[in-house]
Amino acid sequence: MKIDPRCVHCLLSRVHYQAMLLTDDTDTINRAVMAGLDALHRTYRQGEPAARISTAVHRSAYRAMGDRDPYREKKKLSRRLAVELMPLARSLVGDEVSEEHFRRAVVAATIGNTLDFGVDGFDVNEQHFEAEFRRLFDGGLDVDDTGRLIHLLDDVVYIADNSGEVLLDTLVLEQIRGMGGKVTLVVRGAPMLNDATIEDVEIHGIEAQVDRVLTTGSNAIGVCLDEAPSELVEAFEGASLIISKGMANYETMSEYGYRPIAYLLRTKCQAVADDMGLDTDMLVAKLVEQ
Amino acid sequence: MKIDPRCVHCLLSRVHYQAMLLTDDTDTINRAVMAGLDALHRTYRQGEPAARISTAVHRSAYRAMGDRDPYREKKKLSRRLAVELMPLARSLVGDEVSEEHFRRAVVAATIGNTLDFGVDGFDVNEQHFEAEFRRLFDGGLDVDDTGRLIHLLDDVVYIADNSGEVLLDTLVLEQIRGMGGKVTLVVRGAPMLNDATIEDVEIHGIEAQVDRVLTTGSNAIGVCLDEAPSELVEAFEGASLIISKGMANYETMSEYGYRPIAYLLRTKCQAVADDMGLDTDMLVAKLVEQ
Repeated sequence: MKIDPRCVHCLLSRVHYQAMLLTDDTDTINRAVMAGLDALHRTYRQGEPAARISTAVHRSAYRAMGDRDPYREKKKLSRRLAVELMPLARSLVGDEVSEEHFRRAVVAATIGNTLDFGVDGFDVNEQHFEAEFRRLFDGGLDVDDTGRLIHLLDDVVYIADNSGEVLLDTLVLEQIRGMGGKVTLVVRGAPMLNDATIEDVEIHGIEAQVDRVLTTGSNAIGVCLDEAPSELVEAFEGASLIISKGMANYETMSEYGYRPIAYLLRTKCQAVADDMGLDTDMLVAKLVEQ
Repeated sequence: MKIDPRCVHCLLSRVHYQAMLLTDDTDTINRAVMAGLDALHRTYRQGEPAARISTAVHRSAYRAMGDRDPYREKKKLSRRLAVELMPLARSLVGDEVSEEHFRRAVVAATIGNTLDFGVDGFDVNEQHFEAEFRRLFDGGLDVDDTGRLIHLLDDVVYIADNSGEVLLDTLVLEQIRGMGGKVTLVVRGAPMLNDATIEDVEIHGIEAQVDRVLTTGSNAIGVCLDEAPSELVEAFEGASLIISKGMANYETMSEYGYRPIAYLLRTKCQAVADDMGLDTDMLVAKLVEQ
């Protein structure tokens, strides 16, 4: 996906937001914003891949803040919320393995993609998240290609998105493995925003539920192939299906042409929704085969 | 008022918003955003007056769009809303002239400052504006220095803010003139955002309700003294009271030190609210004498 003019202010709004998460020191906040502004000014060109620019912006801002992890507390909160939600999510999905249960697991995991912070107008409302989860589950998927995924699950590479959310992803991983499929789970190589890293896999004990865990090899937004370990590139090339979770992974994976690939996400911003030909606030499980 | 780090993304969000008002041509929108980004990158420094930066950003964006007036239709809408509101506003203020009626007129005019577009999360909801007006009028001013203004009304310079809003300002001007005071009304020298210009004065026939109309001499955000006609500078120096309406005028007039000055505004953003030591969404009539 290419950068959209509306990404400009959104990116700088996220830089400001994450600086405020880290500190109330005006100088540090200002340094982060100026570094983000500088990187954006240096890299922003129409037609440029969105994630190349957002990676440059966030890395500059992180460096200006001393490379600390401003989302640390937000990630803890997301993990806690996810743990609290799991009994409800599991009861809604059910224990059996079938096409219908797979679909329900995808719905639950895709709702998990709303466990996000810092996207304009899309912060988690802790108090009402369980009720919101039920409401979204009842509404189901707005784009539902799950029926076409069923026969592609032999050897799946599953690219996780956010902390917390990755726990809900395990409902889908269980279905895939229950049907005899292999799963390679991919998380970010180092902290970036509230993205899931190997720390999340360890905290939730997810290693035991997959065949292999790989990382993207860096803290780039989404997946940057230039920075990815060769095992990951080989896994993409050999997969029966890549499942890409969330908007940042969509932004990058949509640039590479791997097929078949399924995008599971909530369309949280207009730029991504437009690029997918969809509306905002949709729950999406979209397969791209050609 | 000095620039705040959070102004960075807000300014670029306004640039994008106004480009979208003007056109759906992606190239033009992109040119405007890039011009705004470039100007912001060139001018943004901690400690710099906010309006100096926002003027540079908006002028660059306007130039990139061919200097058209993207808020033209929004201004027409604001004027229509203001005309529709006037009977209600007038009935709430009443016909007499007194300290209490002056206070009510200030409340109505300050609510008029909510007739604004393009400020993040603060767009006018046309359908419910009359009900909102009543609700805000009943709530009254959160900062009310109107009692201290009464003895300062001999020779008032009144700096208008937005289209539409300026019609509600006439309720205050009537009170001042009813008490025997003189009024110099100041509007923007050329179109900028949805600010009132001489066109608004003419459309509503406001010349007849004041002693003199001056302009700021340019399309600078707020009042830029370097670009102001000498009559305006003399009027500021000779005034018994300057009344400065809205946030942009606050941002600039708070840099100059004219006293006494009264700020009538709704605190629509955190940066201005912080600078005034207030909360957001307050209705404010604040006198600064020292």
